[in-house]
Amino acid sequence: MIPDDRRHPLLIVGSLAFDSVETPTDKVERALGGSASFASIAASYYSQPQVVGIVGTDFTDHHMSRMLDHKVDTAGVERVAGETFHWRGRYHSNFKERDTLETALNVFESFDPVLPEAYRDAPVVFLGNIAPELQLKVLEQARGARLVALDTMNFWIETARDALIEVLKRVDILLINDEEAVQLSGADSVVEAAAHIRALGPKYLVIKRGEYGAILFGPDSTLYVPAMLLSNVVDPTGAGDTFAGGFIGHLSSSGSLDRATLGGALLTGTVMASFAVEAFSVDGICGLKAERVAGRRAELEAMIRY
Amino acid sequence: MIPDDRRHPLLIVGSLAFDSVETPTDKVERALGGSASFASIAASYYSQPQVVGIVGTDFTDHHMSRMLDHKVDTAGVERVAGETFHWRGRYHSNFKERDTLETALNVFESFDPVLPEAYRDAPVVFLGNIAPELQLKVLEQARGARLVALDTMNFWIETARDALIEVLKRVDILLINDEEAVQLSGADSVVEAAAHIRALGPKYLVIKRGEYGAILFGPDSTLYVPAMLLSNVVDPTGAGDTFAGGFIGHLSSSGSLDRATLGGALLTGTVMASFAVEAFSVDGICGLKAERVAGRRAELEAMIRY
Repeated sequence: MIPDDRRHPLLIVGSLAFDSVETPTDKVERALGGSASFASIAASYYSQPQVVGIVGTDFTDHHMSRMLDHKVDTAGVERVAGETFHWRGRYHSNFKERDTLETALNVFESFDPVLPEAYRDAPVVFLGNIAPELQLKVLEQARGARLVALDTMNFWIETARDALIEVLKRVDILLINDEEAVQLSGADSVVEAAAHIRALGPKYLVIKRGEYGAILFGPDSTLYVPAMLLSNVVDPTGAGDTFAGGFIGHLSSSGSLDRATLGGALLTGTVMASFAVEAFSVDGICGLKAERVAGRRAELEAMIRY
Repeated sequence: MIPDDRRHPLLIVGSLAFDSVETPTDKVERALGGSASFASIAASYYSQPQVVGIVGTDFTDHHMSRMLDHKVDTAGVERVAGETFHWRGRYHSNFKERDTLETALNVFESFDPVLPEAYRDAPVVFLGNIAPELQLKVLEQARGARLVALDTMNFWIETARDALIEVLKRVDILLINDEEAVQLSGADSVVEAAAHIRALGPKYLVIKRGEYGAILFGPDSTLYVPAMLLSNVVDPTGAGDTFAGGFIGHLSSSGSLDRATLGGALLTGTVMASFAVEAFSVDGICGLKAERVAGRRAELEAMIRY
């Protein structure tokens, strides 16, 4: 963990949830999940995450401690009467597809994010995967924002396209997957999709390809990072949020957007995501030793340095 | 094209065929195809391919000229009474899947490869995608072989597994795709599949992942190359054969298997395959200027140098 005096504030909004996940070989009930949980813990290795979110009374101190143990600032997490957002899903045998069996928004339905005063000057903002209207509300209060990244998903592209297009105008970096890029742009290839999407606002587009890696399209360069090759995938839930958290956490700590920094952020996101999928919930990304992270990063870099 | 006195002999056996291909937007009838056509033309930029194959009387001088124009040695191509191998297929809208509509082996059914004397000392041998029994017959005559690479496909893994396992014992490099690796090994992940397959004989395994790139698993290192990002894919037929031809052509010309050479071979295969898919048949890989190949290679390298 980095020392307190070197931690760079990183505002993160997203869901705090319970995930019930069934995989071909195992399952977990009501484990900590949500885009803000994964992203903030991943980012905590590089920055000072400040989380905005909402939970119910069933969200215990134990759940909160997973973030607090990582020095994540949870002053912006509102706890209200009712149940926490709950997602239930089942993965197919190859982990490439999953079925959503249940989505209970619960307290999330009434979420109206209000930023603590201390959060409003954060120079870097990550709008995790939630309704675009809520992402916009956060952005409007984030007066210090100089770099804004946004993650979204097919559900919002389908049901809240106008609001998403509106918030994209104010975003520097968009992170989505292949299919979402095609869905958002209407283009056939990722190259065309990237051009189309970057014209909507984001200067940088990161296309996440799961086990095939990620591509960053920017004004000056296109960068590619392969995924780690893993022999033991336990649960891919949260991998994208974790990638985003590691990516933006890295950028936030460096204060630059040059080629080397962007490449480093891709490597960081990839390494953090690789730990995430090796366990249920946030278990894979909690309490990682610096040497273990560095070792895996070296392994990843070795694959493309020849 | 490299000067004659610097060309390294590379023995290639494979199919010479006519492909009739239908894509979502276009189609071609009876165009030159087959693993040996694509592989030999791709390899010709780096080595001196010597092709062993069989064609019918409908295989004209024009078809042969596509290879001869690239200084491919076709002394080992037997022309017999009957029709040339013909494949007909149709691609789905995203090019990720295709249906085989017709496979007429024709003269290929009676193929009994005999190597011209001048071919038998070739130090590098590429056994393109044909029946494992035929690959073995070629290998038995290739007395000078010091490095042997083999490409195969799901059809042979299903129908000729024993013969394939037999020939794999004598192969240094196997090139297959993700699904074939899983099918051949019975393993769930590419990492486990690679370990299993390398235990069957090949010291090196190259897993081709189409638009997602390729991975090389070797005794000392695992190397990854992303695919080129293309906005205009016309026809993916032959991309894998072209990749293999570029890859082995590069290795054949360098005489080393160190990390830098293997990485360079992956880049070469990827670049050649990217040209192949931009046109029907071998049109995309014929007559390429050195600057164009070098430019695309630089573009590919830039994606992973950060």
